[in-house]
Amino acid sequence: MTIKDARTPASTQNDSVGAETSTDGEAGKSIGWHKAYVEGTRPDLRVPVRQVHLTNGQSVTLYDTSGPYTDPHVETDVRRGLPPLRENWIIARGDTEEYAGRPVRPEDDGIKHTSPRGGLRNLDAVFPGRPRQPRRGRDGAAVTQLAYARRGEITPEMEFVALRENVSPEVVREEIAAGRAVLPANVNHPEIEPMIIGKRFLVKVNANIGNSAVTSSIEEEVEKMTWATRWGADTVMDLSTGRNIHTTREWVLRNSPVPIGTVPLYQALEKVDGKAEELTWEIYKDTVIEQAEQGVDYMTVHAGVRLAYVPLTANRKTGIVSRGGSIMAAWCLAHHKESFLYENFEELCEILAAYDVTYSLGDGLRPGSIADANDEAQFAELRTLGELNRIAKRFHVQTMIEGPGHVPMHKIKENIDLQQEICDEAPFYTLGPLTTDVAPAYDHITSGIGAAMIAWWGTAMLCYVTPKEHLGLPNRDDVKTGVITYKIAAHAADLAKGHPGAQEWDDALSDARFEFRWEDQFNLALDPDTAREFHDETLPAEPAKTAHFCSMCGPKFCSMKISQDIRREHGGTKAEIEQGMAEKSKEFAAAGNRVYLPIAD
Amino acid sequence: MTIKDARTPASTQNDSVGAETSTDGEAGKSIGWHKAYVEGTRPDLRVPVRQVHLTNGQSVTLYDTSGPYTDPHVETDVRRGLPPLRENWIIARGDTEEYAGRPVRPEDDGIKHTSPRGGLRNLDAVFPGRPRQPRRGRDGAAVTQLAYARRGEITPEMEFVALRENVSPEVVREEIAAGRAVLPANVNHPEIEPMIIGKRFLVKVNANIGNSAVTSSIEEEVEKMTWATRWGADTVMDLSTGRNIHTTREWVLRNSPVPIGTVPLYQALEKVDGKAEELTWEIYKDTVIEQAEQGVDYMTVHAGVRLAYVPLTANRKTGIVSRGGSIMAAWCLAHHKESFLYENFEELCEILAAYDVTYSLGDGLRPGSIADANDEAQFAELRTLGELNRIAKRFHVQTMIEGPGHVPMHKIKENIDLQQEICDEAPFYTLGPLTTDVAPAYDHITSGIGAAMIAWWGTAMLCYVTPKEHLGLPNRDDVKTGVITYKIAAHAADLAKGHPGAQEWDDALSDARFEFRWEDQFNLALDPDTAREFHDETLPAEPAKTAHFCSMCGPKFCSMKISQDIRREHGGTKAEIEQGMAEKSKEFAAAGNRVYLPIAD
Repeated sequence: MTIKDARTPASTQNDSVGAETSTDGEAGKSIGWHKAYVEGTRPDLRVPVRQVHLTNGQSVTLYDTSGPYTDPHVETDVRRGLPPLRENWIIARGDTEEYAGRPVRPEDDGIKHTSPRGGLRNLDAVFPGRPRQPRRGRDGAAVTQLAYARRGEITPEMEFVALRENVSPEVVREEIAAGRAVLPANVNHPEIEPMIIGKRFLVKVNANIGNSAVTSSIEEEVEKMTWATRWGADTVMDLSTGRNIHTTREWVLRNSPVPIGTVPLYQALEKVDGKAEELTWEIYKDTVIEQAEQGVDYMTVHAGVRLAYVPLTANRKTGIVSRGGSIMAAWCLAHHKESFLYENFEELCEILAAYDVTYSLGDGLRPGSIADANDEAQFAELRTLGELNRIAKRFHVQTMIEGPGHVPMHKIKENIDLQQEICDEAPFYTLGPLTTDVAPAYDHITSGIGAAMIAWWGTAMLCYVTPKEHLGLPNRDDVKTGVITYKIAAHAADLAKGHPGAQEWDDALSDARFEFRWEDQFNLALDPDTAREFHDETLPAEPAKTAHFCSMCGPKFCSMKISQDIRREHGGTKAEIEQGMAEKSKEFAAAGNRVYLPIAD
Repeated sequence: MTIKDARTPASTQNDSVGAETSTDGEAGKSIGWHKAYVEGTRPDLRVPVRQVHLTNGQSVTLYDTSGPYTDPHVETDVRRGLPPLRENWIIARGDTEEYAGRPVRPEDDGIKHTSPRGGLRNLDAVFPGRPRQPRRGRDGAAVTQLAYARRGEITPEMEFVALRENVSPEVVREEIAAGRAVLPANVNHPEIEPMIIGKRFLVKVNANIGNSAVTSSIEEEVEKMTWATRWGADTVMDLSTGRNIHTTREWVLRNSPVPIGTVPLYQALEKVDGKAEELTWEIYKDTVIEQAEQGVDYMTVHAGVRLAYVPLTANRKTGIVSRGGSIMAAWCLAHHKESFLYENFEELCEILAAYDVTYSLGDGLRPGSIADANDEAQFAELRTLGELNRIAKRFHVQTMIEGPGHVPMHKIKENIDLQQEICDEAPFYTLGPLTTDVAPAYDHITSGIGAAMIAWWGTAMLCYVTPKEHLGLPNRDDVKTGVITYKIAAHAADLAKGHPGAQEWDDALSDARFEFRWEDQFNLALDPDTAREFHDETLPAEPAKTAHFCSMCGPKFCSMKISQDIRREHGGTKAEIEQGMAEKSKEFAAAGNRVYLPIAD
């Protein structure tokens, strides 16, 4: 594997977002972390990595989701959007065509001609980047990675993720072909750096963003997206529900290096003024096409909320807590009809196949409290999702299944086991689960616990929860806290699953810790900035960065220091120690018996 | 069960630490939370609880560790110390005697006569409270709760914890007698509100405090102790290592409503100027007696670090990471002798039995990195702890066993299973474990995941980890974050274990959430202040506290609101819904089909 450094010799210092390098004064050698690329079999296939150069001359390569923003050689401009990395790959396949596309209407942004506040879209907000026409499968062909995988084709996208995951491209193809993994990559979102979601791969993390009727702007949402990916979000869902919903999504898509997911039902509801019973299949379908043309990579579809299941929620403590689930339940009851999503599922499959939009089959009846976990309503819906998964596969639509929610620890395993069985091992994508209801303001933690466990047992992607869950809209700090917490859960699961190479990161950091290489410890940390800040809070002085202790124990009580001294004094290996222990003991005594320096009294 | 309210009718408002009440303007009824007591069979046996009064007229009773500080009727003064709640119980047993006690020496505070900074203790810092003489078992009698339980006696302490845990006193006695639970309660610490640690009881949380040679003062440590118990710490370990170690402990003990643990080895090492090889059994023993006379309730003793095990750590990634473990390893190697703690363990048992100091048998060889988890060194020591546990029991000394450390998720269960088997089900007391090494600054989370899991599987007490772990000394905020995170882990485990009554708390909070009783949601939260603050950040207006939505989804997309409307429209129970659904559907349409109010455009 060849890794090309993104730095030129003349430019080892830069201050672009996320990239940090520093120079070790003594050796004159650049340490820290920066962007690099692993090169594939073709010049336009370069997989980004985060390269951490250690003070001991070694380096560690980490997965990188931050996109071109952290590459000092790429000039990014949110008004122009990211370069369309995959465009040539898509064109070269020759199975798609550009077309005029559905005209964008004021209603797409939640603006009615009859609105008292004026009938025109805010044209200033419209994304100013290069003009583009939407693309779709020629003659309705399924242009999905699943279709290619089934035909035995290894696409550049598959090779890209193989390099990212350190597995062979054939493993990637096989997992996609078997429906055990998805590679969300709408033909209208060429800007993404391909990634894969499946239990044989690294556990992924999704971050939700989105404005609401109450607060937040387009700029904030774009910033949250880049911020989330900087800290490690593998995909981002734009759950906007307020005004400018179409335009916000356009800005987010054109600037996103990761797949974008949505819940089209939210926008469809805006189009009928929030009246669930006025929703129709036609309005929904139009919204799906609108979003597919923009490039949404995966869509949550709550087609498993069937009329007959709604009464099953009647005795629940917290009823239906999924927004999409409650909207569909209201529609079903208002009309006393089967869900139009369920009824028109095959037609929906045809649409998604033509853009390679991946299904995320929504769990509209997920439990919203510990009391409601693993109940009849939840599992009835799951069985329907299993049925829909098989239909989707007939149309070559990539599919993952959403999971709960609020589940106490002892009921978590049943969720993943049942899902895997019922859904033919399709990737499971869970929200947490939260393992208790009693800690609003800390639900990133209540759910991080459940997330780590369910990922260990086979969940492929975790939807993050921020500290604001149940309380308010997350700000930038909350997004970071949510992402970091979930990266911890995901990595803990990668370790527990024995994912090849996962432990190398832990080992590198623990080596740095044991050897008091503080700078390396910070640079290898999931969040270098905060680790450094916490250390410096008590011991800010520069010499402390090389000190053989920290403020926790002070120099006298540093167990690592004592442990090192023991090794130095008594030889490094077990055999050496056993052999020479008695003898060394005498030398040790003769040498003054100092295992550490006493501090000045 | 009788619950007496700590408020007088004239005093429903107060501003003492932690107690908060507010008045619901409309009903004129006091809501919020405040201190109350559950009364036992004798007037001096009153168990504190946190009573949460809800806006719907119901109330919820929660476990309370905050001590008299949150009772507006008790005037507390850190210079006087807390009232000696248990003093009469101890005296009434007639098996202890007061005696002159060991004289306190300047060295106890780490001050040498030869010190260049002056040979006298800082007398200003000496605890000014009521004079007291230490107490111990008459004629060396074992005055431990274990001895009483084995004789079939139910002490007031046992009744106290039975009321706290909502179980019968006989269950408490049985669990203690069997060695499956400990009730740490030194006869010289009458200030504590008794609590129990065992797998059949609520999972407990310990918070570490303690100054170090590098920073922090006595006042800070006392403040951290009260702060930690306010947020739910069940015990506190004073791990001070710097100056004023004796005096700091005295202040902490006299003001602590929870059991205090220590590691006597730290102070013993201070007495020999930090030279491990100069430690002797005599110095150690003198330190244990000094601390037992002060009232330390449990002591970590690293007697399982045997000479022969030290070489087993030679090939580890992070060697020995327990401070006590590394000190004992250094001693063993320096002398090439068996550990003096192991050799003199029986004599130590006799001392501890005379004060009812509980053993916390330290895991000096715990793994300090994912790479070292569950290795030969760790389990060799565990087998020795099993042996020592049996010896301790012969002397009627209550005993718990400490556990790791850094362990990936898939290796956690082996730890608790082996410990329970080897140590005859003695309570396990673990530090985390941390499930990955890569997130310094977030180790409360990396370890909260492991803590929740190991507690579910039977660990009785969890030693918290703060965000500063591996980086620096925790401040007040870090202590709070650590405690709250671990209360989450403990409660998640209580739920998973099906602990009687545990879910009532979750249910009450989820009911409040579903019914938009925001004030109740805040008051029931593990951290009411932060929950309220987060909510108000986006929707600060007072009407939002009764609004049927929050800023996350806004009014149109609130699934709980839609869910409620469905219930209102379609009847409450499953039968009602099924029966009347079609008919209701028509009415619903006739009524305008509104499941929620559209917001103004």
